[in-house]
Amino acid sequence: MVDDEHHILGIITHDDVIDVVVEEATEDAHRMGGVVPIAENFLEAGFFTVWRKRTGWLSCLFVAELLTFTALASFENAIAAVVALSLFVPLCISTGGNSGSQAATLITRALALGQVTPRDWRRVLRHELLMGVSLGLTLGAIGFLRAALTPKSVLGNADRWLLALTIAESVAAICLWGTVVGAMLPLIFKRLGIDPGIASSPFVATFVDVTGIVIYFSIARVLLLSG
Amino acid sequence: MVDDEHHILGIITHDDVIDVVVEEATEDAHRMGGVVPIAENFLEAGFFTVWRKRTGWLSCLFVAELLTFTALASFENAIAAVVALSLFVPLCISTGGNSGSQAATLITRALALGQVTPRDWRRVLRHELLMGVSLGLTLGAIGFLRAALTPKSVLGNADRWLLALTIAESVAAICLWGTVVGAMLPLIFKRLGIDPGIASSPFVATFVDVTGIVIYFSIARVLLLSG
Repeated sequence: MVDDEHHILGIITHDDVIDVVVEEATEDAHRMGGVVPIAENFLEAGFFTVWRKRTGWLSCLFVAELLTFTALASFENAIAAVVALSLFVPLCISTGGNSGSQAATLITRALALGQVTPRDWRRVLRHELLMGVSLGLTLGAIGFLRAALTPKSVLGNADRWLLALTIAESVAAICLWGTVVGAMLPLIFKRLGIDPGIASSPFVATFVDVTGIVIYFSIARVLLLSG
Repeated sequence: MVDDEHHILGIITHDDVIDVVVEEATEDAHRMGGVVPIAENFLEAGFFTVWRKRTGWLSCLFVAELLTFTALASFENAIAAVVALSLFVPLCISTGGNSGSQAATLITRALALGQVTPRDWRRVLRHELLMGVSLGLTLGAIGFLRAALTPKSVLGNADRWLLALTIAESVAAICLWGTVVGAMLPLIFKRLGIDPGIASSPFVATFVDVTGIVIYFSIARVLLLSG
């Protein structure tokens, strides 16, 4: 290691490099898992210190996730009209979360390995748009089959095929949305000089949850409730 | 590197070690993000190959997540009686997911760094039970405040304070449950010789989603619907 004028300051051994890689991996893992990095030994760290770090993070996520209540409350009329719609909410929003974190993980690693750079965003966007449509059609087909099998008691006065179509279209649209958001955010974060790994964080998952609810009920309004 | 009889087979350089560390990190990241590890360069890999790997994983998750529909459908009477209950479902289940992945991340790293072993499970369980209660009380308090502010139009004929109490107790119970499951699974997987990182996988999140729904509506039945 040398300073700006090339005087030798010290030697970085390969062991040092491995230490840094392991330390960074721990920090990354903690951040992805939603906890302020804790440097101390897990069982020996003070209970209050660990609680403060964990509760701070969980509380922020919880407050963000309160937006799902606000979003659902704004569609309360739709839910009251067709109660069966509310039963598919976790399925629809988890589709966005899963497809989003899959895309974010792939792009974040491709960035880390130098396989893509933020300048490649057009190629990545085209690739992930096509991928999101292909993935969405597959999941939408499974969703259609399951919703078509909804028991009569749960279905109420809703039309079986319109409900199945609503679920299929919503799942496909949310999968496409999650894939594109998950793929673009790491590139945008990297461009802004922010750690692209943040794109896999639970905050982005919460954002995808809330937008997923809006997509789902907007489609339901058009297909199921306009008649 | 030597064989069983101590004949030299070759030399492992520090570079090789770093290569392996980086490769393993990529595999781990892919697995955590819910995708079968892809070894090829991201943009150069065949579209169909990547689609097959991604859709396989997402479809499995989607089918698993269909259980949330089955669980909710079994509580359909409760939802029909108090529609406001359905508006808090994403909030309640995300609490389990977030607290679970936080605990799983901390324990998985502590295992990797040798700070805990599966034999320490009693200490970890005691620690995380106490932590889960502390975290749950905090989140439950926030949930109580938000639910107490539910607009009258959304509330319907439900009692405001009983609804708030239901949300608070459910959030606290689900947070405790998520924390304990998230902390114990990496130890169990490690003991069984399975990669403890699997505990952070979306499959565990799906399990916590479904059990969270059952906890939530069981509490709602006792507190809100028994009268």
